[in-house]
Amino acid sequence: MEGALERTFELPSFAAALVFVNRVGELAESENHHPDIAISYRRVTLRWWTHTAGGITDRDRELAAMTNDLV
Amino acid sequence: MEGALERTFELPSFAAALVFVNRVGELAESENHHPDIAISYRRVTLRWWTHTAGGITDRDRELAAMTNDLV
Repeated sequence: MEGALERTFELPSFAAALVFVNRVGELAESENHHPDIAISYRRVTLRWWTHTAGGITDRDRELAAMTNDLV
Repeated sequence: MEGALERTFELPSFAAALVFVNRVGELAESENHHPDIAISYRRVTLRWWTHTAGGITDRDRELAAMTNDLV
């Protein structure tokens, strides 16, 4: 992998982090494009990249931007 | 961190992975002990460890065992 669009979101609680992850999951399913997701208590790190392209594409940028609105 | 109890679960789909993560999250909340969780499409990696102990405790072993029943 050459790179990924990575952002860490800090939520108020673990429960809130899980709600956020479920929203991201819904978006990922509807767009059929899935980020790597890491949950560490109330911190959620998303990494958007495109496996078939071996790096970041416009699709990743688009989805990452949409994710920012889900917090 | 000196170590963690780590296990990767392979689920049938991303949606199933998310269902599993929600089950783990419910358990974590009810037990007030939270693993690090990584989701990579349909693979879920859990890492149980105890921050205050700087490593693995009996509590981690207990929770990890309970998690295995949630798949």
